Amino acid sequence: MAGNSFGEIFRITTFGESHGKGIGLVIDGCPPGITLDFAAIREQLERRKPGQSKITTRRKESDQFELLAGLYEGKTTGSPLAFLIRNEDQKPADYDHLKSAFRPSHADFTYMKKYGIHDIRGGGRSSARETAARVIGGAVARQILQQRKITIQAYVSQVGSVRLEKTPNQKDFGNIEKTPVRCPDLKVASTMIRLIESVRKEGDTIGGIVSCRISMVPAGLGEPVFNKLQADLAKAMMSINAAHGFDYGAGFDSVLMKGSVHNDPFIKKGTKIITKTNHSGGIQGGISNGQDIYFRVAFKPVSTIMKSQQSVDHSGKKTTVEGKGRHDPCVVPRAVPIVEAMAALVILDHLLINNTLKP
Amino acid sequence: MAGNSFGEIFRITTFGESHGKGIGLVIDGCPPGITLDFAAIREQLERRKPGQSKITTRRKESDQFELLAGLYEGKTTGSPLAFLIRNEDQKPADYDHLKSAFRPSHADFTYMKKYGIHDIRGGGRSSARETAARVIGGAVARQILQQRKITIQAYVSQVGSVRLEKTPNQKDFGNIEKTPVRCPDLKVASTMIRLIESVRKEGDTIGGIVSCRISMVPAGLGEPVFNKLQADLAKAMMSINAAHGFDYGAGFDSVLMKGSVHNDPFIKKGTKIITKTNHSGGIQGGISNGQDIYFRVAFKPVSTIMKSQQSVDHSGKKTTVEGKGRHDPCVVPRAVPIVEAMAALVILDHLLINNTLKP
Amino acid sequence: MAGNSFGEIFRITTFGESHGKGIGLVIDGCPPGITLDFAAIREQLERRKPGQSKITTRRKESDQFELLAGLYEGKTTGSPLAFLIRNEDQKPADYDHLKSAFRPSHADFTYMKKYGIHDIRGGGRSSARETAARVIGGAVARQILQQRKITIQAYVSQVGSVRLEKTPNQKDFGNIEKTPVRCPDLKVASTMIRLIESVRKEGDTIGGIVSCRISMVPAGLGEPVFNKLQADLAKAMMSINAAHGFDYGAGFDSVLMKGSVHNDPFIKKGTKIITKTNHSGGIQGGISNGQDIYFRVAFKPVSTIMKSQQSVDHSGKKTTVEGKGRHDPCVVPRAVPIVEAMAALVILDHLLINNTLKP
Amino acid sequence: MAGNSFGEIFRITTFGESHGKGIGLVIDGCPPGITLDFAAIREQLERRKPGQSKITTRRKESDQFELLAGLYEGKTTGSPLAFLIRNEDQKPADYDHLKSAFRPSHADFTYMKKYGIHDIRGGGRSSARETAARVIGGAVARQILQQRKITIQAYVSQVGSVRLEKTPNQKDFGNIEKTPVRCPDLKVASTMIRLIESVRKEGDTIGGIVSCRISMVPAGLGEPVFNKLQADLAKAMMSINAAHGFDYGAGFDSVLMKGSVHNDPFIKKGTKIITKTNHSGGIQGGISNGQDIYFRVAFKPVSTIMKSQQSVDHSGKKTTVEGKGRHDPCVVPRAVPIVEAMAALVILDHLLINNTLKP
Repeated sequence: MAGNSFGEIFRITTFGESHGKGIGLVIDGCPPGITLDFAAIREQLERRKPGQSKITTRRKESDQFELLAGLYEGKTTGSPLAFLIRNEDQKPADYDHLKSAFRPSHADFTYMKKYGIHDIRGGGRSSARETAARVIGGAVARQILQQRKITIQAYVSQVGSVRLEKTPNQKDFGNIEKTPVRCPDLKVASTMIRLIESVRKEGDTIGGIVSCRISMVPAGLGEPVFNKLQADLAKAMMSINAAHGFDYGAGFDSVLMKGSVHNDPFIKKGTKIITKTNHSGGIQGGISNGQDIYFRVAFKPVSTIMKSQQSVDHSGKKTTVEGKGRHDPCVVPRAVPIVEAMAALVILDHLLINNTLKP
Repeated sequence: MAGNSFGEIFRITTFGESHGKGIGLVIDGCPPGITLDFAAIREQLERRKPGQSKITTRRKESDQFELLAGLYEGKTTGSPLAFLIRNEDQKPADYDHLKSAFRPSHADFTYMKKYGIHDIRGGGRSSARETAARVIGGAVARQILQQRKITIQAYVSQVGSVRLEKTPNQKDFGNIEKTPVRCPDLKVASTMIRLIESVRKEGDTIGGIVSCRISMVPAGLGEPVFNKLQADLAKAMMSINAAHGFDYGAGFDSVLMKGSVHNDPFIKKGTKIITKTNHSGGIQGGISNGQDIYFRVAFKPVSTIMKSQQSVDHSGKKTTVEGKGRHDPCVVPRAVPIVEAMAALVILDHLLINNTLKP
Repeated sequence: MAGNSFGEIFRITTFGESHGKGIGLVIDGCPPGITLDFAAIREQLERRKPGQSKITTRRKESDQFELLAGLYEGKTTGSPLAFLIRNEDQKPADYDHLKSAFRPSHADFTYMKKYGIHDIRGGGRSSARETAARVIGGAVARQILQQRKITIQAYVSQVGSVRLEKTPNQKDFGNIEKTPVRCPDLKVASTMIRLIESVRKEGDTIGGIVSCRISMVPAGLGEPVFNKLQADLAKAMMSINAAHGFDYGAGFDSVLMKGSVHNDPFIKKGTKIITKTNHSGGIQGGISNGQDIYFRVAFKPVSTIMKSQQSVDHSGKKTTVEGKGRHDPCVVPRAVPIVEAMAALVILDHLLINNTLKP
Repeated sequence: MAGNSFGEIFRITTFGESHGKGIGLVIDGCPPGITLDFAAIREQLERRKPGQSKITTRRKESDQFELLAGLYEGKTTGSPLAFLIRNEDQKPADYDHLKSAFRPSHADFTYMKKYGIHDIRGGGRSSARETAARVIGGAVARQILQQRKITIQAYVSQVGSVRLEKTPNQKDFGNIEKTPVRCPDLKVASTMIRLIESVRKEGDTIGGIVSCRISMVPAGLGEPVFNKLQADLAKAMMSINAAHGFDYGAGFDSVLMKGSVHNDPFIKKGTKIITKTNHSGGIQGGISNGQDIYFRVAFKPVSTIMKSQQSVDHSGKKTTVEGKGRHDPCVVPRAVPIVEAMAALVILDHLLINNTLKP
């Protein structure tokens, strides 16, 4: 209800603030007998980590996690897994200047309106640090999906007006981690990086788009009415900080299309029925059809900028918010592993839900 | 889990197929003491009804609903409300030709893969008729929201490439119901209508966009992590048949913006703190800030076209699907009340959830 | 939340009042491909029906149900099943005398306190008529359990001080439906019947106990912490009108036992590991162990008596409630199918939940 | 679903095993602005702690808890609270002898059947240590209830055949913590203690009953159908390790009563409507009526005994389980704070749920 849990069967509950003792999560409903690959979890956390490159914030965070529960002789037992990432020492003084000003487009104002109290240090639960917990949950989910050969690959397809025009193929995917911007086309990537650097120098920020492809999802996942697969993916993605838009398949572009063009004809390939085109993005009637699922997530520019901004304090009196600290000029490169994590959670949950059809 | 329910506190559960006895819904968690306005429910059903104009399907459906439970002396009692709309006599023969062919971009294939059985008559639960139940639920929710002065207004902002460029104001809203296409600009509306008619003549279909504005939502609705207000709105909208995209506030356009432009400065107006611009679409950190909430939903072209299409039968053998029956050339005009209904369900649910903050 | 739904995967939502249009239920999460046996549903409703014998209320109710949705060519499709039982014409005048008096130990007072409004006609949702919907849900669940050879048999083991001392065996179970009191020992049954008749003549009511045995439940059902199998059975049973107590296995009697006596030693029988005794009632650590599950439900005497009772009206002024109408002198014979129905819902739900352990 | 969470709005999720890193819990849905009283939490943990007296196990456990998240300047913020209790160093060798034997009436067999893997060290999640997390959750809930003057008091009313005959009054409650057995009658308490000591000397264990009274609950809590207040209390209590029975109000004794005796007449006292008797245990139609709520929980004798027991190993071969270690001869004195904690969770959750009735 208060919404710190996600998923119905494979269900994560996250907790923690960026300036308290730490952040963490509990995973309930993890199948037993899974050998946890800790290195794989660490790898995903590295991809999300601040300070990983010159185009992300230079702020450093500890991402050392500790497993608190749920493993026996290296394997999951069916009991809840719990993970904790301790925060490093914080200097609380840093945030004193924010105590009386509402930062534009941050959650300060809305939290105060909702709760009558707000942990201003690092934004409390609205801190992007919360997504580290999601990444751990997604990394666990992903290991289970891999046993079923299901793979999830996100990448940056747009930064500001710099856009990847071509749909990348499997080979292009090999380039994603080669640049800090995580765009599979190395040329476009370098243009994106230049743009981000110039925006950073201005003390400003810029938006972007993360695209994602999920392959080898078996046909039959998703529930036909309210819990359509695209609906649950949309919720998952729109719950990520700064996400302002979601579409799947032909998405917003399908608006321009006629039915005779958009419809995906069924054909037989070998012993399998597939579709000739895939404007449906692998989902029809809310249920996966076995083709690649693909979708996009639009991110607004990060709210924290290094420029003075007009605002008001708690009493409504005019004040100025000064940009301080070290923040991301563009969030999308670091959003890539978060988008993948949320996608993994949705797909695994639907895989397990689908098992309840047989008595 | 099987996903025929929506909402946590104000919770609807829908049932029924277009070719069974009827469709209906149960509303659990409706506050007591509400005088139900049946005419208002009927009005919303009329807006969704097929056959209402020359640009919608000419198929006729009965939308006579019966209240089965939950009212005493005209008022809700806190017990579940249940509504039933009976189907009129169906001619089952109509669908025999579909028994062995998978219609392109319909749910036939995915339902068969998921359930091993599929009520082909009218598409079973994938039928758009299911949305009549949502409209009833939304109409009830809306009556409760109106007591709090919260209003919800959706309209068609794009059909194919015909686009409403201007953001409509309150006065423009008066035009929405004046044309069957539900675009608040009468000139743009007539261009849209001409496009839909020409598409219909071709036996084809076309996509479009529904935009929606919710006004007078109090600050504080929405939960900060997974159940962000935009996340629940996204899920609600993406659960509507044919929806392929969702964005809110500046949405996909925010990708192009810099933080210094996108950020909404706080200012004082009278005794209230408001924002000068509203690129955030009335939601910050997942929580409403008291400004107008606005979002868009992109719809693909309807899959049922009046043209021959290549496909395969259940065994994978090539076959042709012939377009038959009477279907909508463009779904967006009729999607307007459905978008409003789903928005009403989300906002009311979050209003009630917010009441649980105080012990 | 408002609690008109039960179950997580196989989930029923009931609606309706005894004096409105009717009562009914929606079943979400029913596996597809099940051939529904309507006669078996009718048989369970007959067992619950008022007016079935001289020891139950002579009031007649229609129990003709209509299936509204979810079946295709005789089989479930995975879509929600919906059932409706219409009420017969009611004489609303009957209840006018109750409008201002709170009936002792009825829900009139608490509903009024909770909702500020109360459908006095037949008690609204507190009417025992609501349980007819549960019986339908249970009858469907049972058909699915039977495919797995799981059987559920409840019976009356006590009425007032008349008690069945012996634990009945399979042969005794053949006697249950031979008498209207549903006690498997015919001698004890006739003593119970005489007691109920004498209580009825006094215009009074009497309590009793329903015992239940579930056989052939596979080992492994139930979740180890909060959703222990006995916890979910307890909730299910205590949600039945007039239920005041629940125990399982040795139950309250285990209080007197020493561990060395209560513990059930494991032994091998053929290729199976079973327990020598079964004080655990087939559940250990919250999870079924493959032995028979057995439990008891204690019912208080029905609150409606044919005697004058002192009470107060809505303003708190003293008044007298007169006994009117036709009510059950003892509820337990008719509670037998309700206990079985609730047990079937719990066991089937846990069977389906257990399927989510394997990815 | 996997059932490590409890509550709908005020929702705890527990994790951890007795022989892993530690145990803990996350509380989601805690209202903001509550000043947490850590001493009060510690006090409840002390009451549950092993080794507190000569009639409990002499095993020592660390109950030092750490708050990981959710507090700002001493107050709750509306964000999840997370607590961790680290385990002290464990000697894993202790459990080697159990690796191949199923202990009678423990969860070894059922966990192995369910999960195919079982953390034998301390019983994994079936360990009573898990209840420490519940006690923390309950202690937080209780602080919020106290602001509403709601008090919860449990006590031991029976050990083996030694029974407290008299219903204790407020004055007697002062005696509860005076003896380690927590019976409010000091004479009966000393008889109970003698019995427990003699049972301990035999290496055996004995069952007992915990009774509980909740005072000052406002009328109106509980939902009328499946989530009746007594149903949720029953589930809560039956989810406690070793609980084998639950009743409320006149409970199993009401079976013997006639309606004319059992019914609680309404009377006016001052400006309040109360009931003259309280056989209903403060709940009518599933909803609290403002009178004291009282109920009983029956506990079986603890399964771990210091005697040799016959059993089988994983292959089904006969073996002997030797009693080792330090365990409780009677669980009920330490169950008292656990019963109170679960009651606090149920009542607070229903208090918050009830707030959703008003839009």
